[in-house]
Amino acid sequence: MDTALPLYQRLATHYREAIAHGSLLVGDRFPSVRALMGRHGVSLSTAVQVCRQLEQEGWLEARPRSGNFVRRPARPAGPLPSEPRAGQLPDPAQFVGIHGRVSEIIARGRQQPVSVNFSSARSAPELYPGEALRLAAARALRRHPDLLVSAPPPNGCPDFLQVLARRALDAGMNLGAEEIVVTQGCMEALNLALRAVTQPGDTVAVESPTFYGLLQVLETLGLKALEIPTSPQTGLSLEALELACDHYGPIAALVVVPHLQNPLGCTMPEAHKARLVDLCAERGIALIEDDTYSPLGEDDTVLPALKHWDRQGGVIHCASLHKVLAPGLRLGWISAGRWQARVEMLKYAQSRQNEALGQLVAADFMGSSAYDRHLRRLRAALGSQRRRTTEAVLEYFPAGTLAARPQGGLALWVQLPPGVSSREVFERALGEGIFIAPGLMFSNSNRFDGYLRLNCGAPYTPAIDAALRRLGAIVGELA
Amino acid sequence: MDTALPLYQRLATHYREAIAHGSLLVGDRFPSVRALMGRHGVSLSTAVQVCRQLEQEGWLEARPRSGNFVRRPARPAGPLPSEPRAGQLPDPAQFVGIHGRVSEIIARGRQQPVSVNFSSARSAPELYPGEALRLAAARALRRHPDLLVSAPPPNGCPDFLQVLARRALDAGMNLGAEEIVVTQGCMEALNLALRAVTQPGDTVAVESPTFYGLLQVLETLGLKALEIPTSPQTGLSLEALELACDHYGPIAALVVVPHLQNPLGCTMPEAHKARLVDLCAERGIALIEDDTYSPLGEDDTVLPALKHWDRQGGVIHCASLHKVLAPGLRLGWISAGRWQARVEMLKYAQSRQNEALGQLVAADFMGSSAYDRHLRRLRAALGSQRRRTTEAVLEYFPAGTLAARPQGGLALWVQLPPGVSSREVFERALGEGIFIAPGLMFSNSNRFDGYLRLNCGAPYTPAIDAALRRLGAIVGELA
Repeated sequence: MDTALPLYQRLATHYREAIAHGSLLVGDRFPSVRALMGRHGVSLSTAVQVCRQLEQEGWLEARPRSGNFVRRPARPAGPLPSEPRAGQLPDPAQFVGIHGRVSEIIARGRQQPVSVNFSSARSAPELYPGEALRLAAARALRRHPDLLVSAPPPNGCPDFLQVLARRALDAGMNLGAEEIVVTQGCMEALNLALRAVTQPGDTVAVESPTFYGLLQVLETLGLKALEIPTSPQTGLSLEALELACDHYGPIAALVVVPHLQNPLGCTMPEAHKARLVDLCAERGIALIEDDTYSPLGEDDTVLPALKHWDRQGGVIHCASLHKVLAPGLRLGWISAGRWQARVEMLKYAQSRQNEALGQLVAADFMGSSAYDRHLRRLRAALGSQRRRTTEAVLEYFPAGTLAARPQGGLALWVQLPPGVSSREVFERALGEGIFIAPGLMFSNSNRFDGYLRLNCGAPYTPAIDAALRRLGAIVGELA
Repeated sequence: MDTALPLYQRLATHYREAIAHGSLLVGDRFPSVRALMGRHGVSLSTAVQVCRQLEQEGWLEARPRSGNFVRRPARPAGPLPSEPRAGQLPDPAQFVGIHGRVSEIIARGRQQPVSVNFSSARSAPELYPGEALRLAAARALRRHPDLLVSAPPPNGCPDFLQVLARRALDAGMNLGAEEIVVTQGCMEALNLALRAVTQPGDTVAVESPTFYGLLQVLETLGLKALEIPTSPQTGLSLEALELACDHYGPIAALVVVPHLQNPLGCTMPEAHKARLVDLCAERGIALIEDDTYSPLGEDDTVLPALKHWDRQGGVIHCASLHKVLAPGLRLGWISAGRWQARVEMLKYAQSRQNEALGQLVAADFMGSSAYDRHLRRLRAALGSQRRRTTEAVLEYFPAGTLAARPQGGLALWVQLPPGVSSREVFERALGEGIFIAPGLMFSNSNRFDGYLRLNCGAPYTPAIDAALRRLGAIVGELA
């Protein structure tokens, strides 16, 4: 904890983290002023300041004659980033040529000293159940003495597949364990999905903006990207997709992140999801959904996956665990509908089956209620981090800056004031040890140069706060 | 141990295994008849029979007035499988369409009850250092408490890369750790190598016969296979490769297993290897070597890899650990010469970096002398298993059967008497619970229907012996 901060602020941080980590839950009674004085050995005025600070931030609600109660602050208000223009025809599909740009940016961040990294959508290790997973690994090694010297089962370990199938049911997907193949993270799942349904030169529709990992996959597979305008509020524009279908040749596949899209943080309304599945079935488009982020929403609701509405086996569901459970495990999976046999074959030829240990660890943890408790704590922590990042951006960045209102996830999408290039912000910030993801990483065009993505995955510290303040000043100088 | 066998045979097996596992070494004095009587509580005649049996098998050498000493039996004699005809032009390249056939055969083996599996080139778990690896895993988890919840380092863990670079030096390759990328086994390495140097529709030269995994990769990447005749003794025919270069358009890449080729078990002479590297450089062919098996030779000699002769960065070296150290770890690596940056990019886009735990386990074990001791034991065990399998084939199969004389590795390549189809042998054998790999899995043509591959990776048991006897009878019925 930063001892330069006044005592009341340090105590406020302590309680904010207690809420974020779930040791204080929404609705719980907050310690009284007298209790705070006794517990921390602080003066009456400090204890009162702690409560006032948390109340101002929206964490406490004072109920007359009952005391203070924990609540969830309302999300920061303010105008949102621009919506894509309705009725506009998307640009034609083009071969992706983004890799050089992306890898140059990533390499720059590795070469230069970085003190604060806002660049990747990645959480801090302390937000994950490291100790419980470690114990589960030790247990698996004891229970299966031959684990490291026996070939792992094809397609995945039965226990892990069972857990995945059970969790899929919660998201409205009635899948047998034999309809799931375990992959090396979601990236391999997306590779296999695209390899199963496309030929080099085919057109693949993607959200715009989308995560650069997907654009790199399209580039390495020799596919063309058709960028479909996507709303920071409601996700992929179905209207734009229909226009694109009508105007540009056949579309082989659409890749979409229906929940907590990266980088926007938006979630498609249910009606949009149902309509999208129908639309793709009508138009003969293979619909590939990347559902990696959905456990990171604002609350415990499990949203139905696109595959829930799939009647014809035309939806390929992909997801992974490294953002929600264990960044050190490369565990993803795929359920490929009518392309299942082809995906199994491609997976076998590409990298054989996954190692067993990580699968047993995940099955062990995900099969218990500890997983749900972990997700609640992670959601609370990320929610707090997103909120504080948003507040800082709105406070420190110049007028004209607009922040998305992500409904969950690890990142914040920021629209800079007109005329400010995020590439320039990137250069100046990197010179000061601050690493950001400029908007032009998220499209094959230069359309999003006026945007940037900020990672909110790390606990909010004074160093992060100072870096955001500095970023705001840099944007101000360029505005 | 099978108690149906006479006592002296069980004791002979005991000592054969002691030699195979390295507790008795070549050159060691063998226990005297008197010592055997005391140690096992057996009669003089049983003890004498044990020594006579082992002597007949070639495991013991009697030195007058000194006693018996352990030696390595000479390899079984007899004619070898046919050499490819010299000077013959290979068949033109064609798109690979083998997957359906291979996956049908593999699926059949999964569906039917199999009592003895000779099908895959795979060793038994007990031949690997399961306990030591388990302890190394527990150690890594203790030393790195955040291992499962932190993103693994890009391209590979530094410790593991260091160990790989040091071992590469033994094989004549002077590689920096930064010139190696860790992959999901050798299969991913081969995929990345081929994706780096080819476009769909390109021609790739391969050994004929070759392992079916490679043919499946070519098929999924839309590549044509040009099958180059390969000698069961000296490997790829350079003469045939030159003829093919002269007659058929450009060849984008050649994939070759220079040491202990699968399925033949042959090793290229040094002069062939040097000439091959030059030839590929002259002809502009990317040379991809799969060096997975080289630690499984007859002795401790480390053979120089093709990359040893590489002056222009035109050789891509691929290898893996699941056959030599840990079948449960999917650890391979690639060093891609002038395509290194492209391979790194493809690996990142295809499956991101490998998990760290397995790498730390391997680095720990391979960094110690325990690895070399393990390899010596494994080589001895596999050598014994190959010899006994070969002897059984020569004894039980009808006249006209020819067995390769593998210089190491996990498998035995068998040429059936003229007119016998291995596909028919496969069908009949599977009906009796014996699973073999028919020759037509090892070529895009039907050229090798008269051959089959037998796994020698499992310790030789009476059940295996009985299955080989039964296989011999089936071949006899079909001859």
